[in-house]
Amino acid sequence: MKTYLQNVNAMLLLRRCHRLKPFGPLSINRNQVAPVVASCAVRLCSSSSNDQRFHQHGFSVSWRHVLAGLLAGTGAVLAYGLHHHKAIEKSSPLPIISQEEVTRHRSLKDGVWVTYKGGVYDITEFVSMHPGGEKIMMAAGGAIEPFWSLYAVHNQEHVLDILSGYKVGELDAEDLKKQYTFKSSDPYSSDPERHPVLHANSLKPFTAEPPPEILSDSYITPTAFFFKRNHLPVPQVDPDSYRLHVEGLPKGVLTLSLEELKTRFPKHTITATLQCAGNRRSEMNKAKQVKGLNWGVGAIGNATWSGAKLRDVLLAAGYGPDVAQWARHVQFEGLDKEITGSAYGASVPINKAISEEGDVLLAYEMNGEDIPADHGFPIRVVVPGVVGARSVKWLGKIVVSAEESSSHWQQKDYKGFSPGIDWDTVDYKSAPAIQELPVQSAITTPREGSVIDRSEEMLTVKGYAWSGGGREVIRVDVSLDGGKTWNVAKLKSSDKEGDQTSPPLGRAWAWKLWEITVPLPPEAQELELICKAVDNSYNTQPDTFGPIWNVRGLLGNAWHRVKVKINEDDDEE
Amino acid sequence: MKTYLQNVNAMLLLRRCHRLKPFGPLSINRNQVAPVVASCAVRLCSSSSNDQRFHQHGFSVSWRHVLAGLLAGTGAVLAYGLHHHKAIEKSSPLPIISQEEVTRHRSLKDGVWVTYKGGVYDITEFVSMHPGGEKIMMAAGGAIEPFWSLYAVHNQEHVLDILSGYKVGELDAEDLKKQYTFKSSDPYSSDPERHPVLHANSLKPFTAEPPPEILSDSYITPTAFFFKRNHLPVPQVDPDSYRLHVEGLPKGVLTLSLEELKTRFPKHTITATLQCAGNRRSEMNKAKQVKGLNWGVGAIGNATWSGAKLRDVLLAAGYGPDVAQWARHVQFEGLDKEITGSAYGASVPINKAISEEGDVLLAYEMNGEDIPADHGFPIRVVVPGVVGARSVKWLGKIVVSAEESSSHWQQKDYKGFSPGIDWDTVDYKSAPAIQELPVQSAITTPREGSVIDRSEEMLTVKGYAWSGGGREVIRVDVSLDGGKTWNVAKLKSSDKEGDQTSPPLGRAWAWKLWEITVPLPPEAQELELICKAVDNSYNTQPDTFGPIWNVRGLLGNAWHRVKVKINEDDDEE
Repeated sequence: MKTYLQNVNAMLLLRRCHRLKPFGPLSINRNQVAPVVASCAVRLCSSSSNDQRFHQHGFSVSWRHVLAGLLAGTGAVLAYGLHHHKAIEKSSPLPIISQEEVTRHRSLKDGVWVTYKGGVYDITEFVSMHPGGEKIMMAAGGAIEPFWSLYAVHNQEHVLDILSGYKVGELDAEDLKKQYTFKSSDPYSSDPERHPVLHANSLKPFTAEPPPEILSDSYITPTAFFFKRNHLPVPQVDPDSYRLHVEGLPKGVLTLSLEELKTRFPKHTITATLQCAGNRRSEMNKAKQVKGLNWGVGAIGNATWSGAKLRDVLLAAGYGPDVAQWARHVQFEGLDKEITGSAYGASVPINKAISEEGDVLLAYEMNGEDIPADHGFPIRVVVPGVVGARSVKWLGKIVVSAEESSSHWQQKDYKGFSPGIDWDTVDYKSAPAIQELPVQSAITTPREGSVIDRSEEMLTVKGYAWSGGGREVIRVDVSLDGGKTWNVAKLKSSDKEGDQTSPPLGRAWAWKLWEITVPLPPEAQELELICKAVDNSYNTQPDTFGPIWNVRGLLGNAWHRVKVKINEDDDEE
Repeated sequence: MKTYLQNVNAMLLLRRCHRLKPFGPLSINRNQVAPVVASCAVRLCSSSSNDQRFHQHGFSVSWRHVLAGLLAGTGAVLAYGLHHHKAIEKSSPLPIISQEEVTRHRSLKDGVWVTYKGGVYDITEFVSMHPGGEKIMMAAGGAIEPFWSLYAVHNQEHVLDILSGYKVGELDAEDLKKQYTFKSSDPYSSDPERHPVLHANSLKPFTAEPPPEILSDSYITPTAFFFKRNHLPVPQVDPDSYRLHVEGLPKGVLTLSLEELKTRFPKHTITATLQCAGNRRSEMNKAKQVKGLNWGVGAIGNATWSGAKLRDVLLAAGYGPDVAQWARHVQFEGLDKEITGSAYGASVPINKAISEEGDVLLAYEMNGEDIPADHGFPIRVVVPGVVGARSVKWLGKIVVSAEESSSHWQQKDYKGFSPGIDWDTVDYKSAPAIQELPVQSAITTPREGSVIDRSEEMLTVKGYAWSGGGREVIRVDVSLDGGKTWNVAKLKSSDKEGDQTSPPLGRAWAWKLWEITVPLPPEAQELELICKAVDNSYNTQPDTFGPIWNVRGLLGNAWHRVKVKINEDDDEE
């Protein structure tokens, strides 16, 4: 049986690169959220041995990056659209405003003004509606261009439409000249190349997932197909000059080179699944509009990770009983930076970080090779059992603290709320930062809308299942009739046939793949396939998305439902 | 505002004991599963200070035990009923059979025969249908009376009906005489007295729950109202001669008196919720018939427990790194015994038992007083975050082992299965023994079917929420409209107003009570109230019972739904 990848490979070879015409610059208007194909010259990256499968036919071509479904910012598009009525015409000539005056407007109290290409805009009213939340305040009192080049989702015509509605003046010409000394080069220009089979949800920052079928093809997700969720441009790190700083301990700062990390501490290897908190957001989005990248079921992957144990490094840096008295969190800072210079950051509870059984790694290898740039070269902290956002890439600093990370992503994002809470009522302080994730499963094949020939008689359904906190998945139930009756799927803990070994209790960091082959029900013309998993705390997935809906579209773990049709017409064969 | 208990108290005082007529011996026929009132002289037990509230009016009366809703064995009744057609008339005279011959029939291969009051019965066919599972095999080849006196659910007319269908002969008269030397005294005769407000699900063994409103009356459940789920008669233990044996460690057996347990080890106190795996089975039962006691939402309670840490005792008994190499489980044996002499038993994973943060206690106090007889006097192991069945009462023996407890309750009960698995297909080896329980919540007030006056304008809904594994409940969502819209309830972590202190991460052993007061929806005539909880792993409860249905009716944690009516007629006031 051909794997899905082999099929994709064959398909890619059929469609030669030079037959794809570039479409010119990205342009999506407000009414067009259907997939577009963008030009983006990308060569196959060769950092993973798995990519060799694509070279095996002797081709050495440059593919253009096929970006099926550029749905990044769909949420933003709709949210902006709601407020577009504010973009009314203003016909009277606008005053000239100095940069000094603009700079005075950097708070909700004083008003929030920004400049864009010589125009001055009072966006005070818009702040609460901004899909990106309070991050918009970083631009208050200054130019918005640097931020838009970082968050490229703004490079859309309708965003300018909305902005124009808030115009209050023209920036003084002298001030404008000074301002334009800002170097507007693309901070993403040095991002690495990506595999063309990935479906990008956004380009800047780059976020992408593989087709779901690939996930069930192999127990270990090949590195090139592992989902990517960057928050900022990929930093270019020189492994020789790289230093990791461990701070907050009585001995003072411990600074470690990459070589020291590799040689001073035992090398540990774990197999762990990482999942984005937004995985399956597209399904929650159907229950009711949410904000965020429109992930399918592919924002999850399973890899082997090797590196030093965070515990060992903390002990070497002076962690001891005295520190245990006051330390509550371990904060991580990436080398990926905002315009303001502040780094991507997150933290995990100290007991997860210091526990022998917590298995938190400072990983320098992914699937047996150096961690590639997109996944955090040279060091990524891997926090198994915990939401992907805490496994900080391009790790630059570790801080032992009494406090959580103060970063946006710890405090104002990656939290879950009641379905009754909307953007008007959300209080980020009221919910804890997501750490352990709930039990999850999804069908990877067949896909929604597939047609199955009646003559095939049997149907095979495949998927993945995983739970946070090291809780092992003990069962996956599969229904063919929308949840009326249920069958138990066969679980796989490795690619070895019949391998049923269990990980140590509380340390089941890796997913299980599952599979079930059942006879096609004789009468049915359409099947509603459903899967749901149970972990060893006997937690299970909720039935529907509506009641777990939350403003940020996170933690989407309701039953996965896939409708397929049965084709009764045997004559076509 | 009067508490529910005060109301119950007043009600009980109104109904004087001597006005209740005993109904004579228990009799329930197959078509009568409605509540019956049985006679059972019980004085108020005075082991708990809370009971003093019942004495405060100067009354010192003996109440008869009001057993509203003796639903014990309802599952059994129906399961038996299914096979009642087998009880066909056999008119030809039956042969005389010797005890020797009966004794030869003690396996499915040789046939399973039992005797009852001089009759011989071939129950081979019935073994697989027995609601109590394989325990019926204990009686194979002998008299069934001793077992029926232990499991009093069998003392029902229809059980005899079913048995009669399997009659194959008469026991030899001489053998019958010898057999009747068996002392048929009631092993439950020394069971302690119980509070009359408890709703008993079965009397022998005694299992009972409080009215739900009592649960939300106080953060700490008064001992007298704490649910009771005994599996066997309550053993009478003399505290002076009591000895606890710790086995399986290289130093040999460590034997500890009660005094030694109290003085040799530091006293620890935790507040922990215990929940029966069958809590809320009555709701699952409505989705589809299950086997087991028909619990409402009251098979849960929250108490303070004080005692020695199991960890400390294991270390004193010689637990160390060598033992850690091979030890995987800690087994517990109660002093409550089967007819065969085998004890109630269970086990927990070694890492739960030995962990500093696991907080497993060998408790000698419950709510600040000696643990009462029904809850395990003098020592109960309390395993917080784990299903109640592992918190073995009347603890007699601890065994460190590479294996789980081999007891019926660990191996053949207290496991969860797919809704697609029935008694015909269940394979107990295929599921892990329940340890940590999933996230749970229920409404304690108002009750199903309550009528609320429109003039009250506001509605207050109360309940409890808890999760296994030390995971803290972070939110309870409440709906008044069957799940369409949701409100966030106020959580209580103690009886202190405004106390929002959180337990250490991963050690949230105690429930939260919750409460919400909302305006009555203007149009509605009926409300479907729902609650669902979320824990700090963001696990949540499934929407419905059907898809979590399982043969044993365990792990019932779907949304709790309560329908109430709104009375629009103000004139009656």
